[in-house]
Amino acid sequence: MAEQNITRKDAMIFNQRVAQMSKALWKAVEKDWQQWIKPYDLNINEHHILWIAYHLEGATISDIAKFGVMHVSTAFNFSKKLEQRELLYFSKKNDDRRNTYVTVTEEGKDLLIKMNANYHNEDYSILQGSLPIRDIYGKFPEFLEVMSVLRNIYGDDFMDIFERGFQNIEKTYEDQEDYLQKTEVET
Amino acid sequence: MAEQNITRKDAMIFNQRVAQMSKALWKAVEKDWQQWIKPYDLNINEHHILWIAYHLEGATISDIAKFGVMHVSTAFNFSKKLEQRELLYFSKKNDDRRNTYVTVTEEGKDLLIKMNANYHNEDYSILQGSLPIRDIYGKFPEFLEVMSVLRNIYGDDFMDIFERGFQNIEKTYEDQEDYLQKTEVET
Repeated sequence: MAEQNITRKDAMIFNQRVAQMSKALWKAVEKDWQQWIKPYDLNINEHHILWIAYHLEGATISDIAKFGVMHVSTAFNFSKKLEQRELLYFSKKNDDRRNTYVTVTEEGKDLLIKMNANYHNEDYSILQGSLPIRDIYGKFPEFLEVMSVLRNIYGDDFMDIFERGFQNIEKTYEDQEDYLQKTEVET
Repeated sequence: MAEQNITRKDAMIFNQRVAQMSKALWKAVEKDWQQWIKPYDLNINEHHILWIAYHLEGATISDIAKFGVMHVSTAFNFSKKLEQRELLYFSKKNDDRRNTYVTVTEEGKDLLIKMNANYHNEDYSILQGSLPIRDIYGKFPEFLEVMSVLRNIYGDDFMDIFERGFQNIEKTYEDQEDYLQKTEVET
């Protein structure tokens, strides 16, 4: 590490730059995210918990807290609310009585699928703001520098779960579309 | 724009990817930021307001809300608190009675300078997580893709103010160090 060569000034400027950039990015993301999930009476944490529980196929509260980057108490409280709405259920494993596992119910899965189907391209600022890059490079930006920094902060495990969720969507999306047409879930 | 060629699936996966990435980034940034400013009894919004008012050299509340990506009421309420602590003051301009301008007091400037001087490199996760990139490329990551997306969302004006703040630090940092040594502000 060349750490010792970094002046306090450079470190501070870099840190404030990332801080302000990240705040602006997150505020735009938050607005998009809220706009998407609003019709389903979910907040961002609830949607995130459902998403993680679905893709991890049986997550503990501490998994959810870790991969959702939220406090354990936040993860627990919102999971509890989702349980009351029958979107997920709590269970214990016979060989592991200490941990409580959170699993998405059929109703919860239906909701997630319906939400994916109701995702519309038009109005999201992050998507719109990324189109010029996509037009130039033929694909959406990958933000590899950010991903690298996150890997260093949160570890390989975190990034693997991160990627697994998106691979799952890739794999299951067509099935979901079929399912939607068959069951005629209201979209 | 090649917008029409984007499938709903691709758009949704991209959007969720950015959402989760941005949340993880912001949570790490937030922790670093809070850690830095904690000794000064400021919260992130208050520090951000001071920073913007200082670098804009007379900002309106709506400037602060815009460049700090916060609600106008948030900008106003925290500015009010900073005024009570005599870190900034409100004023009107003779040729513009409608807008209230916010200016950092000498005490506010001293605080900002002291905070910069007390920035330590060691403990910030974003900084640590960026060092491997810096070791490889010889400079900190610039996150150009994120910056491009932000420019498209918030506009050139926003990015200009963003950059101006950092150029100001570059310019004034040495003066500040001199000032610190002369006045022996407690660091």
